[in-house]
Amino acid sequence: MAEVQMVDADERRTLIAELEKYNFRVSSPDRPLFTKEPNSSMVPVLWKAGDIAEQLEQIGSRLKLQAGGARRTLQLSNPGLPYGTTPTFWVSIQYILPGEIATAHRHMASALRFIMQGEGADTTVDGEMYQINEGDLVLTPNWTWHDHEHKGSEPMVWIDVLDISLVRSCHAVFFEDFESARQTPNVIPDESYRRFGSGLMRPLRRPEPKKYSPLLAYTSAMSEEALRQAAGLDPDPYDDVILEYQNPLTGESALPTIGTRLQMLRPGTHTRAHRHTGSAVYYVVRGEGATIIDGRRFEWAKGDFLALPPWAVHEHLNTGQSEAVLFQVNDIPALEKLGFYREQPA
Amino acid sequence: MAEVQMVDADERRTLIAELEKYNFRVSSPDRPLFTKEPNSSMVPVLWKAGDIAEQLEQIGSRLKLQAGGARRTLQLSNPGLPYGTTPTFWVSIQYILPGEIATAHRHMASALRFIMQGEGADTTVDGEMYQINEGDLVLTPNWTWHDHEHKGSEPMVWIDVLDISLVRSCHAVFFEDFESARQTPNVIPDESYRRFGSGLMRPLRRPEPKKYSPLLAYTSAMSEEALRQAAGLDPDPYDDVILEYQNPLTGESALPTIGTRLQMLRPGTHTRAHRHTGSAVYYVVRGEGATIIDGRRFEWAKGDFLALPPWAVHEHLNTGQSEAVLFQVNDIPALEKLGFYREQPA
Amino acid sequence: MAEVQMVDADERRTLIAELEKYNFRVSSPDRPLFTKEPNSSMVPVLWKAGDIAEQLEQIGSRLKLQAGGARRTLQLSNPGLPYGTTPTFWVSIQYILPGEIATAHRHMASALRFIMQGEGADTTVDGEMYQINEGDLVLTPNWTWHDHEHKGSEPMVWIDVLDISLVRSCHAVFFEDFESARQTPNVIPDESYRRFGSGLMRPLRRPEPKKYSPLLAYTSAMSEEALRQAAGLDPDPYDDVILEYQNPLTGESALPTIGTRLQMLRPGTHTRAHRHTGSAVYYVVRGEGATIIDGRRFEWAKGDFLALPPWAVHEHLNTGQSEAVLFQVNDIPALEKLGFYREQPA
Amino acid sequence: MAEVQMVDADERRTLIAELEKYNFRVSSPDRPLFTKEPNSSMVPVLWKAGDIAEQLEQIGSRLKLQAGGARRTLQLSNPGLPYGTTPTFWVSIQYILPGEIATAHRHMASALRFIMQGEGADTTVDGEMYQINEGDLVLTPNWTWHDHEHKGSEPMVWIDVLDISLVRSCHAVFFEDFESARQTPNVIPDESYRRFGSGLMRPLRRPEPKKYSPLLAYTSAMSEEALRQAAGLDPDPYDDVILEYQNPLTGESALPTIGTRLQMLRPGTHTRAHRHTGSAVYYVVRGEGATIIDGRRFEWAKGDFLALPPWAVHEHLNTGQSEAVLFQVNDIPALEKLGFYREQPA
Repeated sequence: MAEVQMVDADERRTLIAELEKYNFRVSSPDRPLFTKEPNSSMVPVLWKAGDIAEQLEQIGSRLKLQAGGARRTLQLSNPGLPYGTTPTFWVSIQYILPGEIATAHRHMASALRFIMQGEGADTTVDGEMYQINEGDLVLTPNWTWHDHEHKGSEPMVWIDVLDISLVRSCHAVFFEDFESARQTPNVIPDESYRRFGSGLMRPLRRPEPKKYSPLLAYTSAMSEEALRQAAGLDPDPYDDVILEYQNPLTGESALPTIGTRLQMLRPGTHTRAHRHTGSAVYYVVRGEGATIIDGRRFEWAKGDFLALPPWAVHEHLNTGQSEAVLFQVNDIPALEKLGFYREQPA
Repeated sequence: MAEVQMVDADERRTLIAELEKYNFRVSSPDRPLFTKEPNSSMVPVLWKAGDIAEQLEQIGSRLKLQAGGARRTLQLSNPGLPYGTTPTFWVSIQYILPGEIATAHRHMASALRFIMQGEGADTTVDGEMYQINEGDLVLTPNWTWHDHEHKGSEPMVWIDVLDISLVRSCHAVFFEDFESARQTPNVIPDESYRRFGSGLMRPLRRPEPKKYSPLLAYTSAMSEEALRQAAGLDPDPYDDVILEYQNPLTGESALPTIGTRLQMLRPGTHTRAHRHTGSAVYYVVRGEGATIIDGRRFEWAKGDFLALPPWAVHEHLNTGQSEAVLFQVNDIPALEKLGFYREQPA
Repeated sequence: MAEVQMVDADERRTLIAELEKYNFRVSSPDRPLFTKEPNSSMVPVLWKAGDIAEQLEQIGSRLKLQAGGARRTLQLSNPGLPYGTTPTFWVSIQYILPGEIATAHRHMASALRFIMQGEGADTTVDGEMYQINEGDLVLTPNWTWHDHEHKGSEPMVWIDVLDISLVRSCHAVFFEDFESARQTPNVIPDESYRRFGSGLMRPLRRPEPKKYSPLLAYTSAMSEEALRQAAGLDPDPYDDVILEYQNPLTGESALPTIGTRLQMLRPGTHTRAHRHTGSAVYYVVRGEGATIIDGRRFEWAKGDFLALPPWAVHEHLNTGQSEAVLFQVNDIPALEKLGFYREQPA
Repeated sequence: MAEVQMVDADERRTLIAELEKYNFRVSSPDRPLFTKEPNSSMVPVLWKAGDIAEQLEQIGSRLKLQAGGARRTLQLSNPGLPYGTTPTFWVSIQYILPGEIATAHRHMASALRFIMQGEGADTTVDGEMYQINEGDLVLTPNWTWHDHEHKGSEPMVWIDVLDISLVRSCHAVFFEDFESARQTPNVIPDESYRRFGSGLMRPLRRPEPKKYSPLLAYTSAMSEEALRQAAGLDPDPYDDVILEYQNPLTGESALPTIGTRLQMLRPGTHTRAHRHTGSAVYYVVRGEGATIIDGRRFEWAKGDFLALPPWAVHEHLNTGQSEAVLFQVNDIPALEKLGFYREQPA
């Protein structure tokens, strides 16, 4: 879309200034709006487990939390962006000391936690209490009340994901504190698990599906077994063995805007390369390997995080002797809903 | 809708005869088409486990199967209907001797099996082989190829359900034999289980949903655990603890026309009474109890079958000391799709 | 599915009699349930406009209506069926004399009217009053209250269609008279037309879609113009120019069980032949032509009706000088929902 | 979500600097991410028809277009935003001189045109040519090829809307020039209108619905008549008479991300006030009135544009003697898909 031209640059500047008085603009040659392909300012970043552990130790010991809402979190910050980990979402690593509480609140952003380490915390989401375990994916869909308390004896670490940048792009930020510090849990614990946990047998009276999964938590036991089963199937050319956490009432992604996947690269795997719109962050649950992003190789191992920019060509390798397992979050469900998702083999 | 009247009955008869020559009719006072409520000719029937066992023994010893397609089946026959167990579907009890084979075929009717007893048979449905176990629900959706072979050493018994009467009502019967006696199974056994068996993690590339579940079999282990979990929730007023086998990609019933449910009546349960359109057949997996249908009490125990007519008021009791579990098939998904489903508390 | 064999026919009879005592049956060689293809007892029938006019005259003059619910209708009766026009629905021609009223009622069967001739009647469906005109399609979806009154000065004639046989197959017949003879119409006439009549602009607050169209009537002016526009497109190989009346909120058929179509065969048209499950009845709005059904040729002209059995091979010809227009009702939406629809080129 | 505190501000600064080396951040007290409600930087703006006409005259006479892709457009620029008219989309007024051509291209952003004035241009979208008229809404859904040529004798003016800011937020910008200057139109003109233009009769073989309407253009004649009909219904409390342009195959908004509405404020109307997420721009088709936005009154008349920020309380008045008609574009369909839409009476 070529720009409008004027014979004289001065005349052009005069016109532009004049138009500005009326809140008009003409298209400018300086800011090309339309690029042939996404030209994302986001850069690939690798965060190493050792650095994370060291800095968590720092914020654990040096930060003093205010009573209530504060958290000890390391935000994974993308140097190519003004803020956030990707153009649409933030990934933080949260460090929770025994006895710490996050008071109940809700927000328009969809959020989730994936438990990296530890035990003893419980969370309550819209009245349902759940005991958090390592490897669990716990959803806090948008506008659901949530709080947590760490009742264990050792620090816990989990991943926090929030699509706050997407919400901000739409100027739709809402935040609300609950009327008291913590919710009173329902009488029936694990209610959503009891109701929807099999994925294959549903309540007789099918509830009206919401935009998000009715299930609060996807347990590590379930997801690891599903991955093991899927390993017996034909592999995906770009991702080897890969599954999406789904809403069991609709087959849609568990959250409307954030995609969550668990992926196994079997020993010896070197996938084909491709690229797609949407950004992603990987967390290495176990194993070791490498991902080549736009020609640059990132070696990763257990506990590392890796951020993948939109439309970057990427391929994965397992460089170890045993299987590598990656947990992935992305914004692909949002892009698909908007009609912006595209994918291309390299 | 009152009928048309004529002053003279003779004149009426003359007119009717005349119209018949042109393939016309006028509405008749003799066959009221429109009743205030369903006035089903189907009657409730109880089939006792002892009678079933005795007659299975008879057909096991006295019938000689033709090579290939024949089966030893006891059709549960409703004396109120010209044929079939309910207005829309047939339930049969199939008795399979070691070494018996059912050759591969397909039909327009949707079908399913629920395994009552035994082990050692395998079935292949559209190329996927599955080893059948007691308590499993195995689907053979409409127009899918299926065959089976009993490789065990003791007789097996399973329930066969076919919505053949519904298909016949629509004059849409198709049947086709496969090109050979048995299908060549896919290289990957249990493929659909590996792909969809968790119900909560789906293949990354979501397949286009069909009208029926992508899962060949719902295992007893899964369904019993789901029932145990659901027992911790608020009970259903008419059915105590009850779950529907669902299509994990859509949340719809596993088959488009036949509903399948597993139900637990906890000790001491006496449900409220209600009625609904659609017919159902119960199989007592374990326990003992009673169902009162339109004022008549049917006492049932492990291994019995009970048929429930449309719009019959019914309530369930567990009369034993332990939980009672019922497997149910019905035509409610078909009626819901057509807009004919109604339900009413008694 | 070959039958079970016994060495001795006597022994077989004994067994069958014994089983019957327990409400059991074995499969019988006499009633083959499964045919390779639909073997419908329905036969193709042509009803000629002249005969219809003559017999309408008869029932107009010789029948005396009871006050209230009675109608003067000629049911199109299929000699291959115990009752009804096709396996699932009934088509009647209704003759309405000036001043006649049909009192308000509702039923589980879906129904519709297509106006053949006359003017001056109004109908009220679930409170909305509509002035009926020639060529209109008027819906009375299942369980909606409806009544009508003929306020004009000449007899009117319209087609009545009811999927009562399908409802009966499911033993789900309900009928209810309204509390008074006629409904009190809403203050806003033509409300559904005002709300949904453009098909392209919908109320801002989108109503929860029902199983049937929110629009009471599809006017002749609209449907004829749509047909005229579609005539400029590539023709359908089997039907030349053909459109389905749709639910503008969902794109589904206007009624959940009955399909309604308007079709134009342009001069010189001779379509390709095909067959499909589902039965249909054609009404010739104008023009003349022929339909060849399973090798038998039926010549039709304005005002005739033609019934097409399931899975019958058929092709259409326009044998006149001007366009021929057919209104069609069928049960294809029901069959599609149940998974029973199949189609095959001849 | 209170921030993390440290006893000493210096120590905090040291920690933050240290974390930055590893691409980590801790939450900052300076940039509160979570506000209780949307605190949009977008401001309400009114553009007057007189200013628009004057400036269009300027760019018509003073700008010289490069051959091909350039356009004469006045972008409506929101002074509260770095660029664009609202947080997610751009509205421009395009001035097309006789003989001007826009060469064929496509982009990931969804776009539309609403014709303000003139005649004689045609556009081709994915091969279908359409003759543009005043008051028409013409869609160019994302990734569809489009070009246009003005063959008339007087300048034309239309509104251009592009959700380019939303696409940019997702880093998903794509743009592609067609292989030649203009597309070769299909042999059948107005194909989508012929196929889907009635909204009530659809092609027999229902096409697989896309994320956007199958209809290229919504004519002024149709939309004005729909509005006139809707004026007979109960008014909307916040918008009087208001309709959404819909996809006739699904009932969804015509474009997946951009909502389009036509609204009539009848003489004497003063609506109730409310607020909602999502931003909007109104174009005054005719009439005069006022909109009060967060307490500030904007008087508008034919030809004016008005921008409404997210979550701003607003109410409308018709201050003239005749009906006022507004065309509105917004991003509400995108927000609804993402789960970010909320609405609140004032």
